[in-house]
Amino acid sequence: MTYLYDDPARFKDDVIGGFAAAYARYASRVPRASGFVRNGGPRKGKVSLVVGGGSGHYPSYAGIVGRGLADACVLGDVFTSPSAEQVYRVARAADGGAGVVLAFGNYAGDRLNFAAAQERLIAGGTDTRIVYVTDDIASASPEEKDKRRGIAGTATVYKIGGAAADSGYDLDGVERVMAAANAATYSYGVAFGGCTLPGRKEPLFTVADGQMEFGLGIHGEPGVRSAAWMPAADLAAELVGALLKERPSDADGRVAVIVNGLGATKYEELLVLYGHVDRLLREAGLTLVLPEVGELVTSLDMAGCSVSLTWLDDELETLWSAPVDTASFRRGDPSSFPSYEPVARADADDDPEVGEAASTPVSRQAAVTARQVLSAMNDAVVANEEQLGRIDAVAGDGDHGMGMVRGMKAALTAAQAAEHGGVGSVLRAAGDAFGDRAGGTSGILWGILLTSVGVSLGDTEAVTPERLAAAVRHGAETVQRIGKAQIGDKTLLDALFPFVTSFEGAVAQGRPVAQAWADAAAEAVRAAAATADLVARMGRARPLAERSLGTPDPGAVSMGIVLTAAAEVLKASDTCNN
Amino acid sequence: MTYLYDDPARFKDDVIGGFAAAYARYASRVPRASGFVRNGGPRKGKVSLVVGGGSGHYPSYAGIVGRGLADACVLGDVFTSPSAEQVYRVARAADGGAGVVLAFGNYAGDRLNFAAAQERLIAGGTDTRIVYVTDDIASASPEEKDKRRGIAGTATVYKIGGAAADSGYDLDGVERVMAAANAATYSYGVAFGGCTLPGRKEPLFTVADGQMEFGLGIHGEPGVRSAAWMPAADLAAELVGALLKERPSDADGRVAVIVNGLGATKYEELLVLYGHVDRLLREAGLTLVLPEVGELVTSLDMAGCSVSLTWLDDELETLWSAPVDTASFRRGDPSSFPSYEPVARADADDDPEVGEAASTPVSRQAAVTARQVLSAMNDAVVANEEQLGRIDAVAGDGDHGMGMVRGMKAALTAAQAAEHGGVGSVLRAAGDAFGDRAGGTSGILWGILLTSVGVSLGDTEAVTPERLAAAVRHGAETVQRIGKAQIGDKTLLDALFPFVTSFEGAVAQGRPVAQAWADAAAEAVRAAAATADLVARMGRARPLAERSLGTPDPGAVSMGIVLTAAAEVLKASDTCNN
Repeated sequence: MTYLYDDPARFKDDVIGGFAAAYARYASRVPRASGFVRNGGPRKGKVSLVVGGGSGHYPSYAGIVGRGLADACVLGDVFTSPSAEQVYRVARAADGGAGVVLAFGNYAGDRLNFAAAQERLIAGGTDTRIVYVTDDIASASPEEKDKRRGIAGTATVYKIGGAAADSGYDLDGVERVMAAANAATYSYGVAFGGCTLPGRKEPLFTVADGQMEFGLGIHGEPGVRSAAWMPAADLAAELVGALLKERPSDADGRVAVIVNGLGATKYEELLVLYGHVDRLLREAGLTLVLPEVGELVTSLDMAGCSVSLTWLDDELETLWSAPVDTASFRRGDPSSFPSYEPVARADADDDPEVGEAASTPVSRQAAVTARQVLSAMNDAVVANEEQLGRIDAVAGDGDHGMGMVRGMKAALTAAQAAEHGGVGSVLRAAGDAFGDRAGGTSGILWGILLTSVGVSLGDTEAVTPERLAAAVRHGAETVQRIGKAQIGDKTLLDALFPFVTSFEGAVAQGRPVAQAWADAAAEAVRAAAATADLVARMGRARPLAERSLGTPDPGAVSMGIVLTAAAEVLKASDTCNN
Repeated sequence: MTYLYDDPARFKDDVIGGFAAAYARYASRVPRASGFVRNGGPRKGKVSLVVGGGSGHYPSYAGIVGRGLADACVLGDVFTSPSAEQVYRVARAADGGAGVVLAFGNYAGDRLNFAAAQERLIAGGTDTRIVYVTDDIASASPEEKDKRRGIAGTATVYKIGGAAADSGYDLDGVERVMAAANAATYSYGVAFGGCTLPGRKEPLFTVADGQMEFGLGIHGEPGVRSAAWMPAADLAAELVGALLKERPSDADGRVAVIVNGLGATKYEELLVLYGHVDRLLREAGLTLVLPEVGELVTSLDMAGCSVSLTWLDDELETLWSAPVDTASFRRGDPSSFPSYEPVARADADDDPEVGEAASTPVSRQAAVTARQVLSAMNDAVVANEEQLGRIDAVAGDGDHGMGMVRGMKAALTAAQAAEHGGVGSVLRAAGDAFGDRAGGTSGILWGILLTSVGVSLGDTEAVTPERLAAAVRHGAETVQRIGKAQIGDKTLLDALFPFVTSFEGAVAQGRPVAQAWADAAAEAVRAAAATADLVARMGRARPLAERSLGTPDPGAVSMGIVLTAAAEVLKASDTCNN
């Protein structure tokens, strides 16, 4: 159980507030973002390592911000990826001009959001690389290592990357060595019991009495294989045996070892297990380098543990052994790192894309319309929540309506809160909130869509029909590029692109915006209905989708519904009736 | 639940083995003892800080051995004090010649065992001081701070003492500053759920759904006051409010703050609580110095947390802020401490009192008799287990028979394992095992009794009747002095002292040892029966005893039983029939 909280919906924010108060000696908050930047950073000429993911994994990620490790971290809600907007803001605040590496565990939501942030950072002139960690051997075969999840091996990969960045590696070098560390890192874990989210009474999963589950997830996912409880000696043999089977052919026998506890499996237990792990690895002829036994990547109060091996070469060993000084992970004397000249930090407030102060009256007027549009969209998804759930339940988990309502409500609230912003700021705030709160892939893509449109429209220029058309085109293409789905994959794109094409065409013909939008929305609704005739081609964004013939895609349907709701507002609006 | 273990009875040993394997870079095992000495120690001219207590509290105590903190730690079984013998062995191994401070939380068992070890260390020429920590404000009134238990505030007191010792303070100075730190340290905690011992299915206690208990213990004791669950903000106000009520009059407003998790109450929760604690303390005008939020003193997988404040002056602030480098607690650069020349470590093997190699044939022959005596004593307590339990159940918890059986069995096993030892080594091994395994005050005192007799008899000289009489006299007086009970307090002393007096008198009159022992044992049995007529005077060793008139003291009865069993062996033995 989780017992210490106030409003469960604000848990992440309260955690961030507590960390900021306790560990001001290590890091400070990024204004208007759920994240921290290392004290004294960013620094001139130093690559910045930005790590992140959902909350609930402390000391990952705030606890590992500091010298020799991360320059910054960005935190989502519990077990939820931070939004692309949040990643973008934190990375900008951490950028010292030598480039940024965004690092995270391999989960669909994180990949989407960090990729969207990467695009914007690159567009803004910051060379940005992505390293996602794939250490969990239980989650995919050795041939598909790239599809494996990131669990406690993230700690080693980040440590090695952080040491490289602080040692003066350039961006290519940090990216290369982190990729090498990830390729060399293998973890295997076991779950004894699930964790309980703040405010909930029941754990996310349970393990039957006397049983355990191999292949733990760190977000409340159950294991992949059940087994009867076994003594620590036998468990160690299972875990180590599986890890040694994947020993890389070029490994010379040096390994970094982590025995990680998930939360409720405590230190003495981990030490008992480590005793066996240590013996088995030595019996296999290996040399153990600075093992760590403790809690590096937790999952609230989950019961379970994992063993991680990173096969070291000279370079990786040097970096694994390098000093580090963070709130949770300290080793050696970090003053041995070269020092860098600090540079002024680009906080969100300084961001020309965000600054409310820089908005013009004409953009603020457009923002009023944008809020009305979001309000109408919200009404529409609330009215259709049950229907969307029913459609989604045919081939999915039936939560699409609920997710859209959660996202739209959050987007509307955020848009209303940004009361002095131009239209760009308002839509970015809405997209940020949508991506944060809706959950699921479609929530993330909706967040990216709203944010991209906001970035395109900006806070100064008037929203002409041509600029609006270009903005929705840009948004749709961003969603497609980040989501990696194709038209015809039975996704929201199947409604969005027909809308964009129709709207662009009508605008080019000089038709009134409201009419153009209404006609395009009708086109989207027709296209959404037509997805019933498609068989999903299992696009990369939805690797597990098995959509049945005869049922339309719920994401496409909700897209049609909200675009139609927007049309009603535009008809009544002066701004767009020119 | 505890899930990772092999044989639950060997849990402590397996933990120690795992720590030794994982953290050889910080500490190494003391041979034949459950403890660790810091690498490179002991050092010439440096006071040694030895901390210890039961297992189940990691990172206390092995995790805090290292530069700037403890020189050594000694570990008992889960939630059980280490035996006096173990404390003695570890402290000897840590002694660099400048004196030793033994530090522990204020629990009856720890006080008895550490006091017994202190006696022997002083007798052996090592100036030894004791500091026990009394930070838990829930466990006694402010007027009785000396009776309070030690919980997470131990972390601050040890940290300050360790910094003083590494900074070059002399023994008086380290003792003084640790006493000052303890006087300045106040903790208050709350429990949400009990922990589960290795191998058990049920927790040591449960907290009703929706409830919490203020005043947690760290050994599975329930709280002292139940309350309905409350949000973190309200809980922080309760905890901080109670702590601020005890602000010392001379405190200038600087405080070290620890928010400590007991095991299953995780980091993000602790950070949420810390956010409120921080705010409340600042609102009270305080200056917070290097707060720590995490797990410093755990209780297996117990759910709960505590807040500790240490009111700092210049000296305490300097020491709290000083560098430290241990497996679990690191801060700053410890190379700033003065360096000391290492001295050869006195391990148990080098101990002239222990060395089996140094035993003489005559002493080894006496050891054979000692083993036979222990075997007969074991048979006797097994035969009387139920009866002893019944007597104990009248006014106690009914476990006296079980404890005696556990202790005697362990003592016998240890005596048999010391197959090449003289009588002194055999009895010391027996006493060590008895104290470790029996549990409870009488188990500890039995351990001290056997060990003291063994120390007196040694491994070289013949066991003459006079030496035997002097040894049991020394043993009885040691038990009385350490246990702080008086004759007539309804304890095992009420049978032991009549035995000693009778035996001494008979020996002085030149009567055969076996007969003298048998008569004295009969005296002990009569005296034990007569305790039925005593009303316990609530001796300090048994502060909670309320023995009813008409029931004999179970400890005195079992003393009579085992002394009688020994008489049977002596009658048949050549060694003592001279």
